[in-house]
Amino acid sequence: MSGIAVIGSVAFDDIVTPTGRADDVLGGSATHFAVAASFFAPVHLIAVVGADFPQAERDYLASRGIDLAGLETRPGKTFRWTGRYHEDLNVRDTLRLDLNVFAEFQPRVDAATRKLPFVYLGNIAPALQSGVLDQFDAPKLVACDTITHWIETARPELEAILPRLDPLVLNDEETRLLARERNTVRAARRILERGVKRMLVKRGEYGAILFSPESVFAVPAYPLEEVFDPTGAGDSFAGGLVGYLAATGDLSEVGLRRGIVYGSVIASFIVEDFGGRRLRSLTRDDVERRYKRFVALTEF
Amino acid sequence: MSGIAVIGSVAFDDIVTPTGRADDVLGGSATHFAVAASFFAPVHLIAVVGADFPQAERDYLASRGIDLAGLETRPGKTFRWTGRYHEDLNVRDTLRLDLNVFAEFQPRVDAATRKLPFVYLGNIAPALQSGVLDQFDAPKLVACDTITHWIETARPELEAILPRLDPLVLNDEETRLLARERNTVRAARRILERGVKRMLVKRGEYGAILFSPESVFAVPAYPLEEVFDPTGAGDSFAGGLVGYLAATGDLSEVGLRRGIVYGSVIASFIVEDFGGRRLRSLTRDDVERRYKRFVALTEF
Repeated sequence: MSGIAVIGSVAFDDIVTPTGRADDVLGGSATHFAVAASFFAPVHLIAVVGADFPQAERDYLASRGIDLAGLETRPGKTFRWTGRYHEDLNVRDTLRLDLNVFAEFQPRVDAATRKLPFVYLGNIAPALQSGVLDQFDAPKLVACDTITHWIETARPELEAILPRLDPLVLNDEETRLLARERNTVRAARRILERGVKRMLVKRGEYGAILFSPESVFAVPAYPLEEVFDPTGAGDSFAGGLVGYLAATGDLSEVGLRRGIVYGSVIASFIVEDFGGRRLRSLTRDDVERRYKRFVALTEF
Repeated sequence: MSGIAVIGSVAFDDIVTPTGRADDVLGGSATHFAVAASFFAPVHLIAVVGADFPQAERDYLASRGIDLAGLETRPGKTFRWTGRYHEDLNVRDTLRLDLNVFAEFQPRVDAATRKLPFVYLGNIAPALQSGVLDQFDAPKLVACDTITHWIETARPELEAILPRLDPLVLNDEETRLLARERNTVRAARRILERGVKRMLVKRGEYGAILFSPESVFAVPAYPLEEVFDPTGAGDSFAGGLVGYLAATGDLSEVGLRRGIVYGSVIASFIVEDFGGRRLRSLTRDDVERRYKRFVALTEF
């Protein structure tokens, strides 16, 4: 059995950027990952929504080949996030956070999904990530994201799952905070020493860098004249990567490198419009064209 | 006739970093560029020092094959800079700046040097850069650096020489300031529209990005577990680049891309010790080894 299981949030976002605003945009870590990965491989979504979740959004996700059997519907409202980006789009304020049904989320993995070889643990409490991971039989690859909040408030639970992760996907700041090191390269090495198999550092407009015990791979981001809305960039980056790995089954260093470039390609599209809107009209041909431009961008 | 002419400062630096300090370190834009370029091609240094400039430093520069016929000695003291880096090494304060003999610097280019095909205009007043450039017969390539100070105080003089530059080498912030654009990619495009032939943006620990009218090339920086002292990184980066171009004569897009990687290699060495000290023991073999590691770092 092939395919990817993703655990995380499905949400509605109200987003304010320096150039505009949009309300009720479909978002959440699991959503952005799932849609990105669906360009490459079948995805099984494990998440929770409220009774208010519209049929039209279910239809959209299903149209992308995303299996919604694990999308639980509970009485109440769907998770909602309101955020505002600064002129420097790397900085954002959370104006409002309504967890709603997400507050009681206890992810359960059904018998068929437990056999899936690829797992993405989106940003939720590390104890929940651990509990979900325990339900899988023998995944070949477990990618994981987290945020500063969990590193600061749930460090023991997070450190306990590190040896099961490949890759752990963090940004520069999170990497340094987790390792308690000032230098990102040294921080990534320390995290590998704690058992993480491969460490992938997201650097936003500057690209990404992959640390393996034996090698390092660095790639710039696709240069954009305008970044419209960074929401979802990190999760869609991971989605492109894991989607490519699931499609090819190539978990070697070379496979991961190419997957990271595919992830960078998807992330370069998602920031062109609010939330995940850009991906609704994106085609696999668009992805392949930009992958080729990525090769031209970086070869010497 | 082949070779490179460099115009800029020769200085002594007192440097404080979060991990140490060093006094009387040979520095200045022209020095760092010249030493870096000397790994590849003959360099002719056009600069001024005071009567205090030690014979030992002359001997060192001469030992690198740098022609010192254009190094004027004037009564008085050599330019001196005292700076302190923050924990974030991208931020530094100038604690003291003694221009000394540099204040009256009027660069003159002798008859032999005027025929040189490669010119680097290090960071000095744009009017002086223009005056020097006028003295050359028909250079094939003129690279140029400047700083925020000149963009703010001498914009008309700087804009006047833009159409003569290939490449203009600026950091992110300088690029955006010169173009009055918030986005670096858009800023670089605007600068190309003003006549600069190619625009090279330095991004420190994140690498560099080259904008040509027809293409873009992005390369990460070599990942280092410790950046000891960034002084001279930008000028040695330019020195590696122009040195490689002068050695090969290949001014094509591919040539420039490879030159940028050689520049990145030299810059990755210079930050390993105070000022240019690391380059004193560096060999061409060291450079080639790290170039190969750069290929391994970036290929996918």
